[in-house]
Amino acid sequence: MKRRFAFSTAPAPDTVLACDRADPLARYRQRFELPPGTIYLDGNSLGALSTDARERLHRVACVEWGESLIESWNAHDWISAPERVGAKVAALIGARADEVLVCDSTSVNLFKLVRAALGLRPDRSVVLSEPGNFATDLYVIEGAIAGDASRTLRLEPPERVLDAIDGQTALVVLTHVHYKSAAMHDLRAITDRAHEHGALVLWDLSHSAGAVELDLDAAAADMAVGCGYKYLNGGPGAPAFLYLNRAHHATALSPLRGWMGHARPFAFVDHYEPAPGMRRFLCGTPSALGLAPLEASVELLIEAGMANLAAKSRRLTQLFIDLIAASSTLGGLRLASPAEAGQRGSHVSYSHPEGYAIMRTLIEHGVIGDFRAPDILRFGFAPLYNRFEDVWIAVKTLEQVVSGDDWKRPELGQRRAVT
Amino acid sequence: MKRRFAFSTAPAPDTVLACDRADPLARYRQRFELPPGTIYLDGNSLGALSTDARERLHRVACVEWGESLIESWNAHDWISAPERVGAKVAALIGARADEVLVCDSTSVNLFKLVRAALGLRPDRSVVLSEPGNFATDLYVIEGAIAGDASRTLRLEPPERVLDAIDGQTALVVLTHVHYKSAAMHDLRAITDRAHEHGALVLWDLSHSAGAVELDLDAAAADMAVGCGYKYLNGGPGAPAFLYLNRAHHATALSPLRGWMGHARPFAFVDHYEPAPGMRRFLCGTPSALGLAPLEASVELLIEAGMANLAAKSRRLTQLFIDLIAASSTLGGLRLASPAEAGQRGSHVSYSHPEGYAIMRTLIEHGVIGDFRAPDILRFGFAPLYNRFEDVWIAVKTLEQVVSGDDWKRPELGQRRAVT
Repeated sequence: MKRRFAFSTAPAPDTVLACDRADPLARYRQRFELPPGTIYLDGNSLGALSTDARERLHRVACVEWGESLIESWNAHDWISAPERVGAKVAALIGARADEVLVCDSTSVNLFKLVRAALGLRPDRSVVLSEPGNFATDLYVIEGAIAGDASRTLRLEPPERVLDAIDGQTALVVLTHVHYKSAAMHDLRAITDRAHEHGALVLWDLSHSAGAVELDLDAAAADMAVGCGYKYLNGGPGAPAFLYLNRAHHATALSPLRGWMGHARPFAFVDHYEPAPGMRRFLCGTPSALGLAPLEASVELLIEAGMANLAAKSRRLTQLFIDLIAASSTLGGLRLASPAEAGQRGSHVSYSHPEGYAIMRTLIEHGVIGDFRAPDILRFGFAPLYNRFEDVWIAVKTLEQVVSGDDWKRPELGQRRAVT
Repeated sequence: MKRRFAFSTAPAPDTVLACDRADPLARYRQRFELPPGTIYLDGNSLGALSTDARERLHRVACVEWGESLIESWNAHDWISAPERVGAKVAALIGARADEVLVCDSTSVNLFKLVRAALGLRPDRSVVLSEPGNFATDLYVIEGAIAGDASRTLRLEPPERVLDAIDGQTALVVLTHVHYKSAAMHDLRAITDRAHEHGALVLWDLSHSAGAVELDLDAAAADMAVGCGYKYLNGGPGAPAFLYLNRAHHATALSPLRGWMGHARPFAFVDHYEPAPGMRRFLCGTPSALGLAPLEASVELLIEAGMANLAAKSRRLTQLFIDLIAASSTLGGLRLASPAEAGQRGSHVSYSHPEGYAIMRTLIEHGVIGDFRAPDILRFGFAPLYNRFEDVWIAVKTLEQVVSGDDWKRPELGQRRAVT
């Protein structure tokens, strides 16, 4: 996939506007309640509020909770929401409907699955990950093996991970799209290698789900987790998802034995008996309020189509990279993400010694990205609501900020009347 | 506290109405969006929606998320919400402000604290609880000691718990107010006994917080958890709270090492370093949406005053018991809760062989309680929004249901015009 979606040279404003006009997903932007005048390029950190999500949350809070009260657990099927929303997330990541649950946080779900995986590989000593993986992944692994002298966490740089998998590897835990660089692991190749050696793989899809195409089923992936509040647009602190391949449903056990994971939660018996299938990975009472906006948002992504979303993601990030590469004033920015669209997720990072100050100024001018220490400017492109025009305005604003020019709002949109 | 609040005989309707007129908390009912015509006696299972909670949720969703997006983590202090709301819950349970966090579910918090307690008592073998404790508490303990041959879960009936505490006891895990019977443990006496033997106590306050007075500080309690969606009215699946006495802040460790519990969560270093104080018991990203209605609801409880709430709770439950005791048609109901107000929480349970059918019919007639197998009718009285009138109507409806009379809505309120 060699820059299939690249613009051959820095596109002219007319080309950018033409991209938006031809975009089959353009109509979805109006289904989001984005603040006027803001160019929001941080949907990889917190996705935006859609009208559907707002309305669904309102309905669950005011009608279902407010009017039907306790009866809503059955009448509005709150009780099945983790599985119902899980089945929808499954459609976005190439999983089967009964292989995904939505519940708890990404960190809590990581803990469940790391411990479940170790239970499936009792005689193997190594959990393998990479240094600089998203921090919670490493901390959770440390916690999951704390006090167990027979297990160690081994960190190998991404280019050495494949070769580090061997007969002692119990589990490989990797983030598919790196939170800082957007570099994407070869999910299939690493899963295959792990299986050749009898190891399991747990993928953190937090920066992948809703942005890049995934086929966990085809890859025979073992386990995965992912975040509900990034590209899935579920709202701040939304419940996370966890995936477990059917092959492990009968044997994997959750260390967090909550009543909702019991075979008969309302029998209130004294001893734990794991529910059949994925449901044993539930723990406490589902967050009906938290699940509501996430469900509506995931439905929007399904409607837009994951292949369309992923294709637009690649074009947006490539346009951003091409415009910066062609800019005479932005030579001081060093691309910190893969140049090849097929090797990165839906955000693009640049390093710059003045990165922090540049990002603060950009944000003051209404272009919202974020900064990651020590010097990374990070820009996320959410294909459901970001326009090609947003990319152009962001780069023009960045040029003004870096060159120290007096700020004048770039107005690509005005050209519409004269072209 | 010998039925201090009891009505000496079954009160007449006028007395019931006078109770409501004299109730210093009467004005809070109108701050809840209860469905007209419903007598809601299930706030011990799912608390009702207050206007404040609805408006706070709307503000956090539409203004903070929708308009300020990622900036809200700082601009609207989402990042401190677990501690900020925790400090408010602390005021309801007699804890110090820095001893409570709101995050995750009750079950997940139980797991954190059981494991933390075992870490503090490495050489003791027994976790002590009671049979018939709320199921998730027992399941979580089973999960927390699974695979550790040096620990066992010992279940002793409530009347034998005190004597069962000995030098081998690492931790006592009890629900303060029993979810089914409403029987209340003597928190102080059990905590004292545990401390005499060097053991720790973890209290589940799910059916206590917001309904009965607690003074964890005075009792020198070690640990506690509790539910956000019962008397705290936080909404379905609201985040739960956990309490840890300051005495253990420097030494207790969470098994769930998420990034939010790290000393420097945004440094993204590879190794875990627990945050000082309670914050190490955070795990993943806080649920800003889930915390919003809970915070508003807890503020209402604080405004009403915990002493007022607890006093009204005792009067409501006593009125219910007295009316049923005086009823010639309700002799088949057997009180399954303590008769003494000081020994029970804010719900009252009765057993009846036809309990399931009776509760379904009651619900059809707009009196919402719940049923717990095999034969328990459970009625919860939330002092913030339940009226004495509700109690009277519920009993009159129950009389009609049990006697098989044609249903005619009891209308205590109509007497207001003629008395």
